[in-house]
Amino acid sequence: MPDSSGSTPFVGAGPAPLDDALPQHVERVLAGYLDQRRADVLGVDPAVTRVADALAGFVLGGGKRLRPTFAWWGWRGAGGDPQAEHAQGVLTAIASLELVQACALVHDDLMDASATRRGRPTVHVEFARTHATNDWSGPAARFGAAVAILAGDLAQVWADDMFRSAALPEGAHARAAEPWQAMRTEVLSGQYLDVLAQASGDTSEDTALKIDRFKTAAYTVERPLHLGAAIAGADQQVVGAYRRYGADIGVAFQLRDDLLGVFGDPRVTGKPAGDDLREGKRTMLIASALQRAEQRGDRAAHDMVTGALGNPEPDLERVRSALSELGAVQAVEQRIAALTGSALDALDAAPVAEPGRRNLFELAERATRRAW
Amino acid sequence: MPDSSGSTPFVGAGPAPLDDALPQHVERVLAGYLDQRRADVLGVDPAVTRVADALAGFVLGGGKRLRPTFAWWGWRGAGGDPQAEHAQGVLTAIASLELVQACALVHDDLMDASATRRGRPTVHVEFARTHATNDWSGPAARFGAAVAILAGDLAQVWADDMFRSAALPEGAHARAAEPWQAMRTEVLSGQYLDVLAQASGDTSEDTALKIDRFKTAAYTVERPLHLGAAIAGADQQVVGAYRRYGADIGVAFQLRDDLLGVFGDPRVTGKPAGDDLREGKRTMLIASALQRAEQRGDRAAHDMVTGALGNPEPDLERVRSALSELGAVQAVEQRIAALTGSALDALDAAPVAEPGRRNLFELAERATRRAW
Repeated sequence: MPDSSGSTPFVGAGPAPLDDALPQHVERVLAGYLDQRRADVLGVDPAVTRVADALAGFVLGGGKRLRPTFAWWGWRGAGGDPQAEHAQGVLTAIASLELVQACALVHDDLMDASATRRGRPTVHVEFARTHATNDWSGPAARFGAAVAILAGDLAQVWADDMFRSAALPEGAHARAAEPWQAMRTEVLSGQYLDVLAQASGDTSEDTALKIDRFKTAAYTVERPLHLGAAIAGADQQVVGAYRRYGADIGVAFQLRDDLLGVFGDPRVTGKPAGDDLREGKRTMLIASALQRAEQRGDRAAHDMVTGALGNPEPDLERVRSALSELGAVQAVEQRIAALTGSALDALDAAPVAEPGRRNLFELAERATRRAW
Repeated sequence: MPDSSGSTPFVGAGPAPLDDALPQHVERVLAGYLDQRRADVLGVDPAVTRVADALAGFVLGGGKRLRPTFAWWGWRGAGGDPQAEHAQGVLTAIASLELVQACALVHDDLMDASATRRGRPTVHVEFARTHATNDWSGPAARFGAAVAILAGDLAQVWADDMFRSAALPEGAHARAAEPWQAMRTEVLSGQYLDVLAQASGDTSEDTALKIDRFKTAAYTVERPLHLGAAIAGADQQVVGAYRRYGADIGVAFQLRDDLLGVFGDPRVTGKPAGDDLREGKRTMLIASALQRAEQRGDRAAHDMVTGALGNPEPDLERVRSALSELGAVQAVEQRIAALTGSALDALDAAPVAEPGRRNLFELAERATRRAW
């Protein structure tokens, strides 16, 4: 008889609570949504599923789900209840941030002519290979580029469709419009400033910080938190604290990334050591080093750092020594510490509910001290 | 005394009614909206206004406002009242279609490597020139391409923001989600099929028609009409008639475009004669000609038409003669006539209100018989 068997194989086999397994839940709703949209393009023509599948592979194939995570804890900290009926709607709304990110990455990889991402060929490279394999006409690279542009555009419009289709409580969509709108314009503005700074050779600290502020912080932490707060109907005090925390932790996160880009262990970061140098990125770390070299009149150090930027074979050891000796590493570490401090002060002073508060403290720690 | 002056200088100087001057009203709300968003990016950094201004120049610098026009008459034909308070909201919603179009064109021009549009340099060319003029580092073309990708993305997200911000009657946004969502996925799917057909050398009539159906018809006529109907809360009979009309008139519009692309008078079309041939477009006209040549076993005609595709100096007179002699021109004209007939039959049978009905009849005529 079932009730006396003593074995209860299904106990604990149900889905884990949202709080405990957020990335998996985000991936589940993304997979479901992408399946639906695959059916839409299948209705146009089976050939188009190739693009939908490439996008699904990209979105589901990796990523830290950082933006939905900040949005979720922002919502929880502003009183959002994971037991409420609309919690699934909130999950759908915040999962759509991964599609915004897919557009940004697919287009970024094309703009940077990157060949791989997460150990797989980038979208433009994948489709250029399809072209070459089939011996189609015209340049393969141009075909790959066209498909990457269209695939990124598709991710962008699907992000929007997914976000708007989420079953949120009354009034939440109207409240969420501000951060949703600001986030997308800010990240594109930040990307433009980045492209412009690379081209014009602007190596000032101010420019590097501004790019970090809009390309990374607003888009990764500040606005996702703001979005979660807006969905929950948070007051201005919480929104203000989240935005302070988000801007600061977001920039600190990028500064940590800059340090890892030069000093990181490739076995931990998953990226080749010194990749930022090879790509010629004008980071805050580099800006600080160049400014310090100038102030000291140390032309040799200045030239050495400049010479490593965009160099396919930078002398990593010498650059690392120079960045340390110039005091740039310490300056960046100090700034990370100061930003983290101001972020946590803002969070501490605001009426943020548990377990949101605790998780946002932990996320700040992870984002700014990580080795990955 | 003012009331006896006999001159009433302000009579008639007010804005023209929406029905009578729709393109001007569309441009007015677009200009206002783009001004607002310019202020947003100015708040990020003054440098970003360069992108906003390029976009505004592009959007306001020309275009037939075809998509808002179909959407407007679709709304009017489904009972939309231009005197109603929310008519301005409807105008805002349909004007946003011009921003969807801006994204499509800016990205298309980049994918096709087109140098000019509407007599002005395309966005990627304009920014590549800025790069060259300033003697910046890296390849100028790559900078231009990056900015065009970002500018198109910005147009896409602003289209969405503008559409969602429109003050529509209760329930209209929810009803409009289906056509809005379908339209954007269909046009991207159609663009992909086009890129794929060009690469794979697919010259079948079926493929050409499918591309016309999704890249042009759904996006230009069918879904804009559907959108107008959905905003007005039209019943399924009207929506069904609009979709039939839109799919047919949209394809017929594209077929007329194909004929003008080879036979059009450059003084009227504004495009160099034979541009479609130079660009190697696999149109329905070309597909029909190739199929007829094959059926007849006329290898010479087949080779001549194929040889003209993508040829920078096609022998226009010979190609024109061949297309006529093969019967392809007549076949396309017949198809235009049949599609127009079926579209007007569908419109005629549905309860479409005046003056929407009359205007949709006139638009069908203009779209399919035009010389421009």
